Parts: sequence; structure tokens; C-alpha cells
Amino acid sequence: MPYTLFYSPSTASFVIHWLLIHLGVPFETVLVDFEKGAQKGADYLALNPAGRVPTLMVDGKPYSECTALTMLLAERHPDAYLSPAPTAPERANYLMWMVLLANGLLPPFRDWFYADRDSGALDPQALKEFVRPRIEAMFNRLDAQLNDGRPYLIGAKLTAVDFLATMLMRWSRNMPKPATTWTFIAPYVQRMRALDSFLEVNRREGLVDWLNP
Amino acid sequence: MPYTLFYSPSTASFVIHWLLIHLGVPFETVLVDFEKGAQKGADYLALNPAGRVPTLMVDGKPYSECTALTMLLAERHPDAYLSPAPTAPERANYLMWMVLLANGLLPPFRDWFYADRDSGALDPQALKEFVRPRIEAMFNRLDAQLNDGRPYLIGAKLTAVDFLATMLMRWSRNMPKPATTWTFIAPYVQRMRALDSFLEVNRREGLVDWLNP
Ligand SMILES: N[C@@H](CCC(=O)N[C@@H](CS)C(=O)NCC(=O)O)C(=O)O
Ligand SMILES: N[C@@H](CCC(=O)N[C@@H](CS)C(=O)NCC(=O)O)C(=O)O
Repeated sequence: MPYTLFYSPSTASFVIHWLLIHLGVPFETVLVDFEKGAQKGADYLALNPAGRVPTLMVDGKPYSECTALTMLLAERHPDAYLSPAPTAPERANYLMWMVLLANGLLPPFRDWFYADRDSGALDPQALKEFVRPRIEAMFNRLDAQLNDGRPYLIGAKLTAVDFLATMLMRWSRNMPKPATTWTFIAPYVQRMRALDSFLEVNRREGLVDWLNP
Repeated sequence: MPYTLFYSPSTASFVIHWLLIHLGVPFETVLVDFEKGAQKGADYLALNPAGRVPTLMVDGKPYSECTALTMLLAERHPDAYLSPAPTAPERANYLMWMVLLANGLLPPFRDWFYADRDSGALDPQALKEFVRPRIEAMFNRLDAQLNDGRPYLIGAKLTAVDFLATMLMRWSRNMPKPATTWTFIAPYVQRMRALDSFLEVNRREGLVDWLNP
């Protein structure tokens, strides 16, 4: 059964859309219209109780969390070699970086972008300034990981963690310190953006503001 | 080579300590003395740049992030069947719940416990009240997952995600709404606490305040 991706352009569904294209597997897309609040409609909440994208239908069942879906797709299509095997020496680093992105970078980004709506009793601007150093600390750490000249985060080979990391780097493009201002992240981003699948997902989502010159 | 776990009692290293005992694999422990600030010493930072526990030495190299280490150990010891195979129908749910715990529950817990030290320009109490509903929303979601009477989070079989979830439920024991006040979480916790390995890790870490009566 082909995959069905519930997505909204330029959001957390981007990495899954990109991976599906990169893997060359059959899939359909369903646009979740944020302008109309479709992510909070009863139909969609039945698939995704948090009311967020992405949701991916796999064998007829809905799953969420972009980090989990990234790992899942990479494992289900081993011919693309995007997921180090459980016995590979790179496996530990692969899992560690997946989790660092999932818990170190995704949550502060969410607070940065949703501060006006979700800050509760906190001042939205104060919340943004609280999470910003967390985002920048993770970019420091990613930059340190890349500073031995390795082409990809886990080493010589492209893995699924690079897709997730690149999406998150893209999210910083209009922030005070975009990821591309870091020394070793900049050429890494150039390399990732040169992938045909990256150009294709940007084309399909109508995005033009973070492409290689 | 046996594993070496850098740990501190009752912290995020608990789940790894527990799993190592449960799996019955050879390992050594090194206590990281928080009273002396050993987690921020140069020696330890070389192993774990965030200055946190756990760190696990695997084949002589240091890795961190308790969620990643939980997944890694379960995969490296397949005879214990704690990690559904990549081709198993449970795999997608397993990965989704791992990531939900990693990014939905671990970060707000950290802010709850470290608010006095890490709240920056925010009022520590305001930060705690900001993250508390996030913790409780995740307990709602865990309770909903368990309310069909399944014994474990992914279904009929114990998996590594249950170890991580139980540790996080334990962390709420002195909060305004402990996890055990939820209808379906309470018997789940009873079941997990009945494991011999749970009793043993509590004994080794000197913990007595969250055991079955
Ligand atoms: N933890 C989720 C977060 C997904 C998320 O926050 N998606 C945002 C877009 S980037 C969303 O759906 N926002 C709509 C809303 O919250 O109303 C994941 O990693 O997939
Ligand atoms: N994201 C890390 C967090 C680990 C963490 O926050 N550990 C705490 C104990 S629960 C720690 O080492 N605290 C010492 C400190 O921050 O100084 C993980 O999941 O392993």
C-alpha cells in the first residue's frame, strides 16, 4: 500500500516529504490547510491527537512525530542505506543525533514559532528569548560535529539524520543567527541543498527562499 | 568489551542502569558525583559535552541521550525482544512513542527540575507552571494509549519504551499530579514495578520511595 502523507508546506512534514521523494517510493499527499485550522478538525485529530503535521499513513494506520517517521522510512527502505544497521559501528551515533535533534532542537523551535499562541502566562517575547540560546547551542554542537571535515553528520555517508538536521537548519533562516552563519554548517547545507530530492521537494511545496545560489 | 555507565542515582541514567540489569549483560558503573559538580568537570565534559548523565561507553566510545541509549541497548541484545524488528508491525508505534517521550516529556521535566538554575530571565516558578501542563498532557496521552487494557505501551509485549516511560512516570512522584493518579497508568506502573530488574536497580541506586506496597 502506498504511503499517504498529511502535510503543510515548509513545516515539520517537509523532512518526510523530502525523504519519500528521495527514496523514490509511491506516496500520496494530503494538504492540511492551516489557514482553515484543518489540523484541529475532528477528522484530523482522529489521526493525530496533537493536531500537528506530519501524519504518515503506513499500511493504513496513522503515525506521527517527524523524527520517528524519518527513522521508520529509512529502516523500511534499506536499499537506500540511510539507516545504519543495528550492528553497524555508526548506529550509536545515528540514534544519538536523531534524539538530540528530537529533544534538543525541535521543542525550542516550536516555542520560538508558536510563542504568540502557546506561551500561556509567559510573555511571548520572553519565551522566545529563553529558547533561542538552546537553538544556538545545538547549532554549536552540530558545527563541532562537522568540524573534522566529514561530509555528513555521522561520517562519510549520508544518513536520514542529515535530512532532519537540514530541515531544522532551514527553519532558522529568518532568525537572528541562521544556521548557515556557522563555519562548518554552511558548506554542509550547500551539500545537502544540492541533492536532486531537495530541489524537488522545494518545487512541490512551492518554496524558493532557501536554495543554493 | 563490557559497557560502562556513568550515572547518578534517580536521574536520567536510571533507565539505562535498569535495562543493563534487565538484559543481564556485563557492565561497570561510574558514579558521577553531582554534589561535587563532577558532571561539569573537564574529564566528564570530554565524554558528554552537555555535562549530563547518562553517558554509556560502547566499544570504548562515549554516547549520550537516554532515549538513544535505550533504543541502542534493546537493538544490540535482540534475544530479549525489547525492540520490535524493523519489519514488525509494532515498529512504527515503538519509534513514535520513543520520540514522544524524548521530545514531549523529557524536555518539560528537565525545565521543571532545573527551573531554579536554568530559567534565565524567566521567573523559575512561572517556567515550572508553563511546562507542567505539557507533562500532564503527555500523561493524558499515555493513559489513553493504555485504556484498551493492553499490558504494555506497544501492546501485548514488553518493549524498551516501557522502561523509559516508567522512569518518567517515576519522576512525577512528588509533583502536584503524579502519573499514578491516572486511571490506566496506575496498574501499568504496578506491573512495571513488579519486574525483578526494577527491584534490583532500586536496590543498587539506594532508592526506596517508589516501590509497590
Ligand atoms: N513533535 C512534532 C511537532 C510537529 C509540529 O509542531 N508541527 C507544526 C508545524 S512545524 C504544526 O503542525 N503546527 C500546527 C499547529 O500546532 O496548529 C513532530 O516532530 O512531528
Ligand atoms: N537529554 C538528556 C538529559 C539528561 C539530563 O538532563 N540529566 C540530568 C539528570 S536527570 C543531569 O545530568 N543533570 C545534571 C546537570 O544538568 O548538571 C537525556 O535524555 O539523557
